[in-house]
Amino acid sequence: MLLGGNLPGLMRPILRVVDLIRKKRDHGELTREEIAFLVEGAARGTVPDYQLAAWLMAVVCRGMTRAETASLTEAMLHSGDVMDFSAISAAKVDKHSTGGVGDKTSPVIASIVAAAGLYVPMISGRGLGHTGGTLDKLESIPGFRVNLSLKEFREALIACRCALGGQTPEIAPADKKLYALRDVTGTVESPALICASIMSKKLAEGIDALVLDVKTGDGAFMKKEQDALALAELLVDTGKQMGKRVVALITDMDQPLGKTIGNALEVKECLEVLNGGGPQDLRDLCLDLSAWMFFLGERVPDVTAGRKLAQEMIATGQARDTFRRVVRQQGGDHRIVDDPSLLPRARYTQTVRNKQDGFVAHIACERVGVASLVLGGGREKQDDVIDPAVGIVLEKKVGDAVTSGDALCILHYNANARLQEAIAMLEDSFVIRAQALPMRTPLIRKIVGA
Amino acid sequence: MLLGGNLPGLMRPILRVVDLIRKKRDHGELTREEIAFLVEGAARGTVPDYQLAAWLMAVVCRGMTRAETASLTEAMLHSGDVMDFSAISAAKVDKHSTGGVGDKTSPVIASIVAAAGLYVPMISGRGLGHTGGTLDKLESIPGFRVNLSLKEFREALIACRCALGGQTPEIAPADKKLYALRDVTGTVESPALICASIMSKKLAEGIDALVLDVKTGDGAFMKKEQDALALAELLVDTGKQMGKRVVALITDMDQPLGKTIGNALEVKECLEVLNGGGPQDLRDLCLDLSAWMFFLGERVPDVTAGRKLAQEMIATGQARDTFRRVVRQQGGDHRIVDDPSLLPRARYTQTVRNKQDGFVAHIACERVGVASLVLGGGREKQDDVIDPAVGIVLEKKVGDAVTSGDALCILHYNANARLQEAIAMLEDSFVIRAQALPMRTPLIRKIVGA
Repeated sequence: MLLGGNLPGLMRPILRVVDLIRKKRDHGELTREEIAFLVEGAARGTVPDYQLAAWLMAVVCRGMTRAETASLTEAMLHSGDVMDFSAISAAKVDKHSTGGVGDKTSPVIASIVAAAGLYVPMISGRGLGHTGGTLDKLESIPGFRVNLSLKEFREALIACRCALGGQTPEIAPADKKLYALRDVTGTVESPALICASIMSKKLAEGIDALVLDVKTGDGAFMKKEQDALALAELLVDTGKQMGKRVVALITDMDQPLGKTIGNALEVKECLEVLNGGGPQDLRDLCLDLSAWMFFLGERVPDVTAGRKLAQEMIATGQARDTFRRVVRQQGGDHRIVDDPSLLPRARYTQTVRNKQDGFVAHIACERVGVASLVLGGGREKQDDVIDPAVGIVLEKKVGDAVTSGDALCILHYNANARLQEAIAMLEDSFVIRAQALPMRTPLIRKIVGA
Repeated sequence: MLLGGNLPGLMRPILRVVDLIRKKRDHGELTREEIAFLVEGAARGTVPDYQLAAWLMAVVCRGMTRAETASLTEAMLHSGDVMDFSAISAAKVDKHSTGGVGDKTSPVIASIVAAAGLYVPMISGRGLGHTGGTLDKLESIPGFRVNLSLKEFREALIACRCALGGQTPEIAPADKKLYALRDVTGTVESPALICASIMSKKLAEGIDALVLDVKTGDGAFMKKEQDALALAELLVDTGKQMGKRVVALITDMDQPLGKTIGNALEVKECLEVLNGGGPQDLRDLCLDLSAWMFFLGERVPDVTAGRKLAQEMIATGQARDTFRRVVRQQGGDHRIVDDPSLLPRARYTQTVRNKQDGFVAHIACERVGVASLVLGGGREKQDDVIDPAVGIVLEKKVGDAVTSGDALCILHYNANARLQEAIAMLEDSFVIRAQALPMRTPLIRKIVGA
């Protein structure tokens, strides 16, 4: 009598939330209808948060089958508007990254691909924890607006073949609801939930094809390659089930991508790539991801041709011109494209120097991301305010030879930054060894779905 | 960037709820302080329901160690008032049952034990689902008040050496909060949560010793004996860790206990036992439980002497006299003790008859409980209203020989009852076989902690 209980098959309404929670808890497979019932309840607010939270934890603990994951994705996608760009005859393609440190490919890739005639309706997210977010980076451009309405997003896409916006209330509202809940209930780390969250938003963009950049390594959410691989397979499978052309690249995040971490610093590095320069790893990844987008968007017969086309878009300045148009279209100061000194700049810099001769064996990638956050460049909580100017510039990367006294990295900071804390973290982040590494990890570790 | 995440060992307040949820999710063991933090947060309302729900589901999925269970029990106990009857020199003892069908021992046992000089501060619960609750049974006595304040409870205990009340707001408020949440989030079925819920309330009674009646079989929450045994061991271990003398009896609930199911019908059967009659299984269990209470309360040197003392309390009428005093003390019409016809009676009866010769091989115990509920004798939801008069009287029990046309059971019902539904359930509940059973299951299957 103090235990409570559940009636066996009697007097139940058609679907009871508590029964669905119990079913998942007891290792059951939920049907398409059952999942749709929960997701609609989440979007409409008819299922209370505490029941959603219990269900999410049951999903994290018990997992979901491929069929359940597809049903969840579909239900979340249809919880809101799905953009319809069928009037545009050219292919609509996008890229999504699972997030990393210094990962700034989005503005570059979108500009390259749109410059070559495809359409890129790109909805991005914000940084959280040690990772950055495309929206925060773009907002470091004075005046740049990412909070576009669906109407503005459509106008920008038609005007520039590229629109760079954030999730609107109309897009996958169930995801918005569940994502906020997952963040505070310890239910982020579920491949099924991650997949449905990503794919519901991306498929709401009305795209034909999607290239996924699934990060793995110390600075990624999936530290282990096998976890990244499993997520990539799930994402690709789910996307294909929804009738899209999807490929996933498993890419290295054992050290930051490129040399800069911090919003304005990263935009500046994007401009270097668009100008034909920039660090090799960043440039390579931008070209490869663009190449796959061209291929999936049927703009080129193969990926090699895609890479050549991407290089051409940079070499001819067309990608840079597209980016300039996008900045102007979205209210930003387009003069930054030709004069990056107009981007916010931190007042002070501080150099962290090397103390021994040798080679950089390892850079603790997540810790570098956190150091940037400590300087004010990221947010720990959703409502933290970011300082767009601060960040870190890496002067050495893994494999580089170093001698005592060399600059390892430079901190860009403003007053009140927790400077000493950040310096200590960065000093700990670089591991120097006497011997050179036998070989480098390739940037693209695997390709899934090709 | 769309994944969210958690900062590694940085900028954390002393204790963050989400970290504790994640720790349990990841198979970690929570400390005493961490559990106390969550339980206090539940009682004070400072931890939101959705975080509690996620944590509860993680506990259900990952389990809790003995140490965690003890910490949880202790924290829930100290979330409210603990009664202090240290001024009473005699032993304070109680019994708790995990709930079953026709399980009506509490009023009988409390009267027997109090009659012999021990004190029984008994806080009971209400029925839910297929099981009955002591409070509902007592409330079928006209005028009987179970919602005693702590002051009234103490007065009743001093006046009668026995008080029969419900959980007050002062007793284990964290349990009240968590129990309501568990009921709607599919997180009832966790041995650790069940243990903490039971023991925190029982230990708040300020008792020296506790006898647990852990039911197993079709009509119990723990259908499998091994589950009941595991719960019993956990309860006993937790009670002993809190410095109490505790024993658990694993008892059979494969068929209803006694012959009646339904509140007033069950009170009438209690009176039969107090008058020296009643069905043998019910009488035996009342005597055995009382015997253990006498033994743990150090009133007798061994259980055999305890059983004799219990029989003596019945034979001399002292137990019945105690019950009469308790009814009067708590505002009930004490004349029912000598004239049970004053209890509420249903207007109609309907007999379910046997269709073949043979022996009763099985009675679907849970289904009989649900049939009583269908007649209006139980509640599916917390706020359902109970009809105290309705219920079922079993004319045959497992092992009884039957011939075609014999009455198997009699339904007591009022107008608007879902009679046909209940009849169909009861017809399905009796399994008749040509051969007699080779042997009966003993009523007391095992004893834990003796």
